[in-house]
Amino acid sequence: MPHTQYKKDKKKEEGMEILKRNLHDMTERNSLKKIMLKPIGIIHTPLKSLKGIPIQFSMSDIQGKIEIFEEYTSGLKDLDQFSHIYCIYLLDLVKLPVSLQSKPFLDSEKKGVFSTRTPFRPNPIGLSILELEKIENNYLFVNHVDILDQTPIIDIKPYINEFDSVRSSKLGWYEGKIKKKLS
Amino acid sequence: MPHTQYKKDKKKEEGMEILKRNLHDMTERNSLKKIMLKPIGIIHTPLKSLKGIPIQFSMSDIQGKIEIFEEYTSGLKDLDQFSHIYCIYLLDLVKLPVSLQSKPFLDSEKKGVFSTRTPFRPNPIGLSILELEKIENNYLFVNHVDILDQTPIIDIKPYINEFDSVRSSKLGWYEGKIKKKLS
Repeated sequence: MPHTQYKKDKKKEEGMEILKRNLHDMTERNSLKKIMLKPIGIIHTPLKSLKGIPIQFSMSDIQGKIEIFEEYTSGLKDLDQFSHIYCIYLLDLVKLPVSLQSKPFLDSEKKGVFSTRTPFRPNPIGLSILELEKIENNYLFVNHVDILDQTPIIDIKPYINEFDSVRSSKLGWYEGKIKKKLS
Repeated sequence: MPHTQYKKDKKKEEGMEILKRNLHDMTERNSLKKIMLKPIGIIHTPLKSLKGIPIQFSMSDIQGKIEIFEEYTSGLKDLDQFSHIYCIYLLDLVKLPVSLQSKPFLDSEKKGVFSTRTPFRPNPIGLSILELEKIENNYLFVNHVDILDQTPIIDIKPYINEFDSVRSSKLGWYEGKIKKKLS
């Protein structure tokens, strides 16, 4: 049984909305084609080099400022109601191709790239959960930053506890190597 | 004070590892350039159309199978130790450009795109936290799927409670519109 708790008819009505949107034809799909993205902004942080960069956002108390480019500013409406956001960005200093197994920060044995949070990934996409302190015009003031200055931002999504917080995850090789966040 | 609890010297040593990796020159960065990605796999799910698709992964008990393309299979090493993964994918049916404000599933008022989880985003990148049941060869058997069949997969990251679970997020306009997950 799905976890949804909505009234069935309300859901149906809402479901229709998505079908009215502009979609590509299903028959034109091609999973092998290359994907083109365009930055929606850039982040300004005190982190000017990879040396000393925090291992994860949850271990950082560094503040930064996400600049959303003018053309996307109207997409920020209502975002100031949220305390946390997903920030998705391009790790643009990573040279491709990367090796698919390497030693991560916290271990001395080689791990598969998809079982680590290394920035050196086949698609170097970074994901950080940042605390949103305030929005002024097209600037998002954020905390817990682990992102290099001038990094191109691809997407911002609201972080929603009820969706995104999994309480009982199995930590794999990270087990015992990290301590719980203090906050 | 950063949240980190590592021994200082260990951190220093680990930090060196990243500096040895192959990086682009800082001076060549250009935040305005287009970004090219290449799918690392494809997902197989029973969801053949957008009609009736779950609103979020946390509201789905649907199972699916992520096929990682052969050339990336060695990157899966050690991933089977984790119970949950981030699956990052391309919402490849979305036609660009999208409107920057629109009515989301759960509300009748227009919201800015970055304050919703709509698939209709300037960069149509999807993010789902999936339960990883098992890995067989290059297939990841996953649960809580809200992803359309044949969707191109861009990245897989381990979900790590200690990093990724924010306990006290402010829900914005979602407040009162969603019920907590049952599990």
